[in-house]
Amino acid sequence: MRARPYATTSPSRLAAALLEIAARNGLEAASVREVANEAGVSIGAVQHHFPTKDEMLAFSFRALADRVLTRLASADPDIDPARSLFSALSQLLPLDDQRGSEAHVMGAFAVRAVTSPSLRTIRSATLFTIRSGLAAVLIRMETPDPETRAALLLAAVNGLALDAASSPELYPREYLTHALHTQIHLALDCADAR
Amino acid sequence: MRARPYATTSPSRLAAALLEIAARNGLEAASVREVANEAGVSIGAVQHHFPTKDEMLAFSFRALADRVLTRLASADPDIDPARSLFSALSQLLPLDDQRGSEAHVMGAFAVRAVTSPSLRTIRSATLFTIRSGLAAVLIRMETPDPETRAALLLAAVNGLALDAASSPELYPREYLTHALHTQIHLALDCADAR
Repeated sequence: MRARPYATTSPSRLAAALLEIAARNGLEAASVREVANEAGVSIGAVQHHFPTKDEMLAFSFRALADRVLTRLASADPDIDPARSLFSALSQLLPLDDQRGSEAHVMGAFAVRAVTSPSLRTIRSATLFTIRSGLAAVLIRMETPDPETRAALLLAAVNGLALDAASSPELYPREYLTHALHTQIHLALDCADAR
Repeated sequence: MRARPYATTSPSRLAAALLEIAARNGLEAASVREVANEAGVSIGAVQHHFPTKDEMLAFSFRALADRVLTRLASADPDIDPARSLFSALSQLLPLDDQRGSEAHVMGAFAVRAVTSPSLRTIRSATLFTIRSGLAAVLIRMETPDPETRAALLLAAVNGLALDAASSPELYPREYLTHALHTQIHLALDCADAR
């Protein structure tokens, strides 16, 4: 592509390019050079917006997390809590191509967060926001140990999402929705441990 | 370190070096050059054992997965199925430094498997082996829908492991063991969905 001047690009466009590359070839492929190439701008234009690669990664992770959190928060607020939880949490499962890419790239950022303090901050805030939202539903339903069950709902969905992204033959889409319904049932309807 | 001749290294030693680098700095840092450096051998010695980086990654992932699977299979076979499941699955949680490193690197390979067919084969076989072992316990206990509950147990543990690796402040170790006990209770003791 022909290089465009700074004015025709923006941090959000560059983040979109980075997320595109990460979904296609893995986060390790998302170098400054590749992002510039994907966005059709010069390396200098990328560096103008993101002086360091760390800043580029952090901005892109925040953009992705915000997009997913927005969808989660605006999921169908049903009177039935099981349906409401399903509608929200199914946003995190690879049930179509977009969510498949997101599950892959969210997983990549989660792993990268282990060794990157700036990504870790974003990941912790994201997990905390989702866990709190889930716990609020379970507390309203007076389920036992709502905080733990909320953390398990989120962990099971994050785990299923990565398992399905790497092994789609073991986790077809109908299976994922059945598994999510099952975990929600276990969280909402099961009595406390004896 | 001083470079050593081929005879003093082996695929297993090189895999150990790769896993060390990946735990410390992320899988993306584990280049042929870095592995050679970590193992104290020449780049040629690494290439002698692994003609491609893909082969080096696949061998290392298999070594890590085998180590974890061996520990899982030899976990305390208790008469109480809940204790037996806990003993096996706690091998996958970051409850000490070694398991912390393993959780991080297993997660990194899981993500890399999305874009690498050779890693995907290893990850699918690993997931399938663990899922089948868990399902066997649940089938013996006559729990409803044992296959799905087994997949959810594994997904919840894999999800918790990665959540805890990237956000240890949200998932202290006592919390992880409590969460695992809770998920095992939900899988074993909860009635079928209405």
